[in-house]
Amino acid sequence: MSSKLIDGNEIAAAIIAELKAEVATLAKAQATSSRDEPAASGPHDKRAQHLPTLALVRVGDDPASVSYVRKKEKTAAEIGIASRVILPPITTTQAELEALIDELNADDSVDGILVQSPLPAPLDELRIFRRIAPEKDVDGLGTMNLGKVAQDDDTGFVSCTPAGIMALLARSGVDLRGKHVVVVGRSLLVGKPVALLALQKKAGANGTVTICHSGTADLPALTRQADVLIAAIGRPEFITRDMVKPGAVVIDVGINRVEDPTRKTGYRLTGDVAFAQVAEIASLITPVPGGVGPMTVAMLMSNTLKAYRQRIAG
Amino acid sequence: MSSKLIDGNEIAAAIIAELKAEVATLAKAQATSSRDEPAASGPHDKRAQHLPTLALVRVGDDPASVSYVRKKEKTAAEIGIASRVILPPITTTQAELEALIDELNADDSVDGILVQSPLPAPLDELRIFRRIAPEKDVDGLGTMNLGKVAQDDDTGFVSCTPAGIMALLARSGVDLRGKHVVVVGRSLLVGKPVALLALQKKAGANGTVTICHSGTADLPALTRQADVLIAAIGRPEFITRDMVKPGAVVIDVGINRVEDPTRKTGYRLTGDVAFAQVAEIASLITPVPGGVGPMTVAMLMSNTLKAYRQRIAG
Repeated sequence: MSSKLIDGNEIAAAIIAELKAEVATLAKAQATSSRDEPAASGPHDKRAQHLPTLALVRVGDDPASVSYVRKKEKTAAEIGIASRVILPPITTTQAELEALIDELNADDSVDGILVQSPLPAPLDELRIFRRIAPEKDVDGLGTMNLGKVAQDDDTGFVSCTPAGIMALLARSGVDLRGKHVVVVGRSLLVGKPVALLALQKKAGANGTVTICHSGTADLPALTRQADVLIAAIGRPEFITRDMVKPGAVVIDVGINRVEDPTRKTGYRLTGDVAFAQVAEIASLITPVPGGVGPMTVAMLMSNTLKAYRQRIAG
Repeated sequence: MSSKLIDGNEIAAAIIAELKAEVATLAKAQATSSRDEPAASGPHDKRAQHLPTLALVRVGDDPASVSYVRKKEKTAAEIGIASRVILPPITTTQAELEALIDELNADDSVDGILVQSPLPAPLDELRIFRRIAPEKDVDGLGTMNLGKVAQDDDTGFVSCTPAGIMALLARSGVDLRGKHVVVVGRSLLVGKPVALLALQKKAGANGTVTICHSGTADLPALTRQADVLIAAIGRPEFITRDMVKPGAVVIDVGINRVEDPTRKTGYRLTGDVAFAQVAEIASLITPVPGGVGPMTVAMLMSNTLKAYRQRIAG
């Protein structure tokens, strides 16, 4: 069984180690360059003379958001990415938050901007995401970056969950060429972008892609055709053994709380896949937790470094 | 057989008649308003005081491009949309063409901009399309408008062929809810946007969508599952009877020239579907020519009016 497991913690740790090595190289190059050209100036040099920097904006004190932002801050520190945590009060208006985004967009020392979701009501989250300058939109939720995914354009930022899924597949040796990828769920955050990624004309991709959802007429008939099944529908243990073709690769994006009186907390986390039974027939499968989840923070950091490199180059 | 035919000419003519009626109403309202407020001024009024205007940019004298632009000009005139045809010489550089786009972007009297494809080498077509301001990109080929399609955002412009396909389906009474839509072809111009449209959470859409392409392992097994089959692969008569489920709706996007010595021209036009044999089992089918083709110009005009309305309102 353990050989079947796609270990998201292990793969995320490998990516984080690679990013850390990259930042160390960058920092060394900067130290050398600033000794050589002590009087260097101008906007280009100003950009180059800071370390990669991620602005993390969190509005209010939602416990899950507090914990996610802390995790991002910690991972950034581990890699050597500077993070700037900005905590507008819960009373912040849309206009004030937009003004903050505008400031961060204009700030040359900021490479990436992440606004922690969900924003408290009545803030309009999508409008905020779209206000982030595309070249700093490291969460990849803006319209421009989604459009770039559809255009097979590598200069954009792929949002962290779909990027994490693709990285898990690539690092597990799964090539989608000639494969039928069935995505369950058509969300903007996962279903649609991962479908577009699987379809791209790129090494590792080139899949044939089906996107199903709650309105699909005969869902099991489609999921049973999947060589690679991506479950992102948000229903605990929805994908059962009879819905999976033996030998399929199964990626479980769901994180659902299910009541469990045997636990101290009163609940346990479960994915969209009935793990125990599906694991018996899958060739590879991600667990929940410890599958897709840990990848999202790694991909955010990877996007932040990419933003930094592109801003230095541009 | 004739009851099975989705008549693109007829549907396009109906849309064009509706747009013509809308422009007539607009023109009347403007005439009244300019009598009431003779001294009106300011940018808002300046925008409102012109009729809908489409800039058509054609570089060089490719015969097909000449004919397409003429058709667009003629249809615009019929509706009451002003068109401004701009013919940069074939020697135009990328920088010159970009400067022209910038001028048109800034020109308040222009609502929509279309650059006729294909542009002669070495011009970078995608860079030109992307330079058009999103709010004037009535051909819907820019990154922002494609992203909006993925985001189910109605404020953007859907590129003309996929928009035409959706209009053909809607006006033929085909609701995609609960249907399996199989798209053959993953192009940026047709396959991907039409897949995203079929998937949207909107009346008429909500389909389950499969996107196949030249690298699909067992294409007939997938096309045979289609309730609605959209062929956009660019291979003459590629979809044969054995690849279609009896009762399916078949939309043929292909326009291929096939040698035919019995014709004066030496060729005939054919779609991606073997029409005669597939028509026997399909419930509805588009012919080529006279199916999707005539819809594209109608949708361009519809987008131009939409751009005009949005600019007036904005």
